[in-house]
Amino acid sequence: MAPLPALITRENFKSFLESFDTVLTDCDGVLWHEDRLIGQAHVTLNTLQALGKKVFFVTNNSTKSRDDYVEKCGRLGFKATKEDILSSAYVLAQYLKQQGFQKKVYVMGMGGIVKELQAEGIQSTGGEPEVYDGGSLSTLMDKMKLDPDVGAVACGFDPYLSYLKVMRAASYLERPGCLFLATNTDERFPVASKGLVYPGTGCVVRCVETVAERPATVMGKPSTKMFSVIQEKNSLDPKRTLMIGDRCNTDILFGKNCGLQTLVVLSGVTTQADLEKWAASDDPEQHALLADYCLTQLDDLLAFLDPKQEQC
Amino acid sequence: MAPLPALITRENFKSFLESFDTVLTDCDGVLWHEDRLIGQAHVTLNTLQALGKKVFFVTNNSTKSRDDYVEKCGRLGFKATKEDILSSAYVLAQYLKQQGFQKKVYVMGMGGIVKELQAEGIQSTGGEPEVYDGGSLSTLMDKMKLDPDVGAVACGFDPYLSYLKVMRAASYLERPGCLFLATNTDERFPVASKGLVYPGTGCVVRCVETVAERPATVMGKPSTKMFSVIQEKNSLDPKRTLMIGDRCNTDILFGKNCGLQTLVVLSGVTTQADLEKWAASDDPEQHALLADYCLTQLDDLLAFLDPKQEQC
Repeated sequence: MAPLPALITRENFKSFLESFDTVLTDCDGVLWHEDRLIGQAHVTLNTLQALGKKVFFVTNNSTKSRDDYVEKCGRLGFKATKEDILSSAYVLAQYLKQQGFQKKVYVMGMGGIVKELQAEGIQSTGGEPEVYDGGSLSTLMDKMKLDPDVGAVACGFDPYLSYLKVMRAASYLERPGCLFLATNTDERFPVASKGLVYPGTGCVVRCVETVAERPATVMGKPSTKMFSVIQEKNSLDPKRTLMIGDRCNTDILFGKNCGLQTLVVLSGVTTQADLEKWAASDDPEQHALLADYCLTQLDDLLAFLDPKQEQC
Repeated sequence: MAPLPALITRENFKSFLESFDTVLTDCDGVLWHEDRLIGQAHVTLNTLQALGKKVFFVTNNSTKSRDDYVEKCGRLGFKATKEDILSSAYVLAQYLKQQGFQKKVYVMGMGGIVKELQAEGIQSTGGEPEVYDGGSLSTLMDKMKLDPDVGAVACGFDPYLSYLKVMRAASYLERPGCLFLATNTDERFPVASKGLVYPGTGCVVRCVETVAERPATVMGKPSTKMFSVIQEKNSLDPKRTLMIGDRCNTDILFGKNCGLQTLVVLSGVTTQADLEKWAASDDPEQHALLADYCLTQLDDLLAFLDPKQEQC
């Protein structure tokens, strides 16, 4: 048994608001679902910024670059500069830079990773479709040419997932010293419609890990690497930082791993039933998924915040 | 520490030969690599059959039906009838039949599974390419039609692995009561050339399991289901049955799980260095991978067997 996250009410709101200077917020499932705002999330964050809170947008999504995120934030009514955006693709490029990586990266993923690598002057290959079109696998292997300069494999969200790309990634990973990085291991996206499930990056990563017979180094939440990258450029007090997220095994665990305060919103992956199940359990790993605070969705805060502040 | 598998020598050969009546042999990596015989494996098995040993061909490979295997065995010089072949695809169909399954199966895999299901009168869908060709994922989801009759997902080896197929499989697996079966979880095929790694069925299964957030029921080795299916039609004494394989975490573990004698050949996945590492370890899970006997390759037995017996 463990306590459920505290609901934010008129009674505890003031002490809650005064307890943090910095907000790290997840994006998909908290602020938006794909291109659709979740309620008045933008007004809520703009108000917090007007009150002097520093806001960072922290996302495991690797499909977009930070420039793409600045554009998306602006389009949906959020106020964000490039320095306010932390994506797993950006952290991946920073990690390789810190390692003094000089070779080429094979990317199983989309433009976000490729662009962030380019921004750090790191060469990449892959990032485009490679589809099995029948024929014997030994013939395919005869035709496949590996790039001799590849020294790292980076897995992100890749809707072009294919057998040949997995073969290529696993083959590079046989090379001594080849780095194996993943942007995140999210199982699925917080979207469901008509009974369809939308697979996340985790399926690409687990697929390659299985063949490579070795684990990837994960850049995104719940790994603390993202917080280290923010910490390197800003000096934040973890105790006065609030992490907001909808997925407890990434967002909330990340917050706890970094010693932050945590707020779960139920507008994405996690449900009230999940929270109750974890609270009722005897398993400390399930208790670790329980945030300090809980809201149905982010703009519930507007009942207590004065949106006029937004104009300041 | 645990003892290494015993080498078969002129001294222990007679007692070894007299200790079993039945042979279960893995195929890829023991008898052949794709379409290439491993040494004189056919002469070895034919000689054992001539000496009165009953031989079953037991394979996790799900790409072919039992009829296809009879044809392949004949072409490569082995003597096998349909009843002598146990493939994971066949066991999968038998399992569904035992469960009284009446719905349709979504197949991520090749013809072997589809043909074995047909032979049991079980309907299936899937089994053909479904490739992401760009565009937004929400548009894709709008276009994707799920089959209302699907009540099971079967994962096998699938070179047409794609994001859309994983989405489809995971979506069916959200349905209450939907069965989730896998032919096997082999990580890679025992073939390597020019630094290329050849991904096995395991990568398809782990990929779907990750998104579905539930484990598949595995039909192939090391699960004992394959032995149950042979036992149902033949009465075998496990203690007088020899399992031959090249992959210890499937073949040898299967043999041990079923109480059989075990022989590892080093013509496929397992190396002498693996055996030494497992023997030196303190981990009982690694000791479980150590077979009773070891040979470099199967036809080493011909030094002790009289191939003239084959003519009998």
